[in-house]
Amino acid sequence: MKELILEKIEQAVEILNEKNIDMWMTFVRETGNMKDPMMDMIVGTHATWQSAFIITKNGDTHAIIGSLEFENMKSVGTYKNIHPYLKSIKEKLIDVISKINPNKIAVNFSRNSILADGLTHGMYLELIDHLKDSPFAERLVSSEEIIAALRGRKSPKELSLMKEAIKETLKIFNEVTSFIKPGVTEKEIADFVLSIVDKNGYGLAWDKEQCPAVFTGPNTAGAHASPTNRKVEQGHVINMDFGLNINGYCSDLQRTWYVLRPGEDKAPFEVQKGFDVIKESIQLAAKELRPGRLGWEIDFIARDNILKHGYEEYPHGLGHQIGRFAHDGGALLGPRWERYGNLPFLPIEEKQVYTLEPRLTIEGYGIATIEEEVVVTKNGSEFLSEPQKDIYLIYA
Amino acid sequence: MKELILEKIEQAVEILNEKNIDMWMTFVRETGNMKDPMMDMIVGTHATWQSAFIITKNGDTHAIIGSLEFENMKSVGTYKNIHPYLKSIKEKLIDVISKINPNKIAVNFSRNSILADGLTHGMYLELIDHLKDSPFAERLVSSEEIIAALRGRKSPKELSLMKEAIKETLKIFNEVTSFIKPGVTEKEIADFVLSIVDKNGYGLAWDKEQCPAVFTGPNTAGAHASPTNRKVEQGHVINMDFGLNINGYCSDLQRTWYVLRPGEDKAPFEVQKGFDVIKESIQLAAKELRPGRLGWEIDFIARDNILKHGYEEYPHGLGHQIGRFAHDGGALLGPRWERYGNLPFLPIEEKQVYTLEPRLTIEGYGIATIEEEVVVTKNGSEFLSEPQKDIYLIYA
Repeated sequence: MKELILEKIEQAVEILNEKNIDMWMTFVRETGNMKDPMMDMIVGTHATWQSAFIITKNGDTHAIIGSLEFENMKSVGTYKNIHPYLKSIKEKLIDVISKINPNKIAVNFSRNSILADGLTHGMYLELIDHLKDSPFAERLVSSEEIIAALRGRKSPKELSLMKEAIKETLKIFNEVTSFIKPGVTEKEIADFVLSIVDKNGYGLAWDKEQCPAVFTGPNTAGAHASPTNRKVEQGHVINMDFGLNINGYCSDLQRTWYVLRPGEDKAPFEVQKGFDVIKESIQLAAKELRPGRLGWEIDFIARDNILKHGYEEYPHGLGHQIGRFAHDGGALLGPRWERYGNLPFLPIEEKQVYTLEPRLTIEGYGIATIEEEVVVTKNGSEFLSEPQKDIYLIYA
Repeated sequence: MKELILEKIEQAVEILNEKNIDMWMTFVRETGNMKDPMMDMIVGTHATWQSAFIITKNGDTHAIIGSLEFENMKSVGTYKNIHPYLKSIKEKLIDVISKINPNKIAVNFSRNSILADGLTHGMYLELIDHLKDSPFAERLVSSEEIIAALRGRKSPKELSLMKEAIKETLKIFNEVTSFIKPGVTEKEIADFVLSIVDKNGYGLAWDKEQCPAVFTGPNTAGAHASPTNRKVEQGHVINMDFGLNINGYCSDLQRTWYVLRPGEDKAPFEVQKGFDVIKESIQLAAKELRPGRLGWEIDFIARDNILKHGYEEYPHGLGHQIGRFAHDGGALLGPRWERYGNLPFLPIEEKQVYTLEPRLTIEGYGIATIEEEVVVTKNGSEFLSEPQKDIYLIYA
């Protein structure tokens, strides 16, 4: 844990040099109630009172924290200089910043990226007030570029944790295949999955209410909704969206099943076609995914393929980065819709991990989705998950 | 769950009328990564894309959300009007606000209270941009007063959930008394507590690393730090800070033990005196706690009593509100230190639940702390936890 954080702090220092920013400050309070998404990656503990975690271009680290948390910070051991205060952070904050005298101070606010937007508006006003008699209030800039790079570029240790989470998730999908049969409900399938998760002591990649998300048959919510009491029936297409959090790193994968009807020994033509179009769209997109391409271009490849085959386009992006959160990093494989801000326009970089998750509706049967995870390499991309090749058949 | 949220929304409408504010809006995105602390209380589900949850003075509720989350929002059932959007929230947002045409729009930013400060600075900038061609950007005000009232005033259902969490916590303290003996470490005591928590399927009131916090003997961190491999010894004062989260509501209590030395059948004079001063300080403070008093006045009563007996003052507030979070509500029983902002100056109201948790160091022995929970009544206050009367003795 500590080692992983020190590795990311070191990487942050490299990025500060690359972007020529003297100082990056994560400014927080009461992280038990709402936590700046950077805390787990670059601090590794909580903070109760106003606290500043500073990383500088020359490799220094400063934690300015409430005095009652001094011993804890020391034992966590991720910051070299610890400055405890009793009544107000202001004096020590100005003192530390003055010694650094930074050209720019990156702080965590961003219109585009929630992961670089951990500074609340009230805390922003507090910070401006603390700095109002100094030259530093004028030097605040968004840390969005730093955070996009830091969260995106996975270290070897991070990648191996992510592969572990993927492996365990795929194992659970396998177990689910033998559990599904006509008559079981979406909820029962979800509970079966959660019982395996509990037994193994794993965490979930997102809210339990929708992890796993399970949809059986036609006319379901299709995504971002909780499992219901709908029962699996013959002729249903079933899809499941599920991810684990193991040692702080997430997986996020989807698989599709078909429940055979009497006399069938394979999925009917329409179902097979829908599944194949999804599978093909993922392969087409993955082939073009490499450093320097833009997210919207990759999204368009999959989206266009689905439209060309006569299906409606999916109402979301093709894929997102993943890491400590299921939705992580900056750049996004999404369409150029206002709701995605500038994220689909950011260049794709080596070592980023993306999901690829197109979807389409097979009228009268259900929804076909496959979600794979890929890592961007020097000249292309590699699948981290063994891609689903065939629709999983349930023999009733 | 839904019932509790509808109860709080109804209470919010009353508060909007009391404060004469037409509309309150919780504006969020990607709540899976960082969640506005109001979401669980007044929405009851997550939101992925920019989403606005609006409560009006006349009792209307509007959820403006990404289209993919429409079915989920409908099934959660906490908002009467649901407005799904596909590409950008802007149009529907302006449309809904225009129909309300509010004099003031309360949004969640606050310099003083983290619980009213769920709006990030980036999202604040987004909001201002969405509203820039309307008259509404000028009408934004802080929701801090609304949230302080709403989180503070516990409904009967909320109080009964909190009593349940307290009861179970006290049960666990009892079990701990039979577990503690010389030679066991702080970590082992904490693990023992966590095993009971797991067995019962309870949640914790704060981060597992420090819940419970256990400190044995002299010269420990004393607070806000993780249990260590320090072993319990004869002559140690032990204190533990621990809370549960059951059905979404928290407890937060502390108790003190003493490990008898050979030949002792009671705690030595200094230990007993330290314990008694803490116990007395709590009673003196509770006696003055009632609607209309200010938090710093109540803090001062306990703090002054401890100083008068020749101990150092505690480096924190006497107590905080508690509810869905261990640190909840607005008004605080804290000293007039800058780090507490205006919270010690807010009047105490009926139905608020506070902790009372003074501390002092017994030189050479350890730290004496007791933490009780009290609810403010019409004319005074009532203990929700059965107060610790005697220091718990461990017979070695």
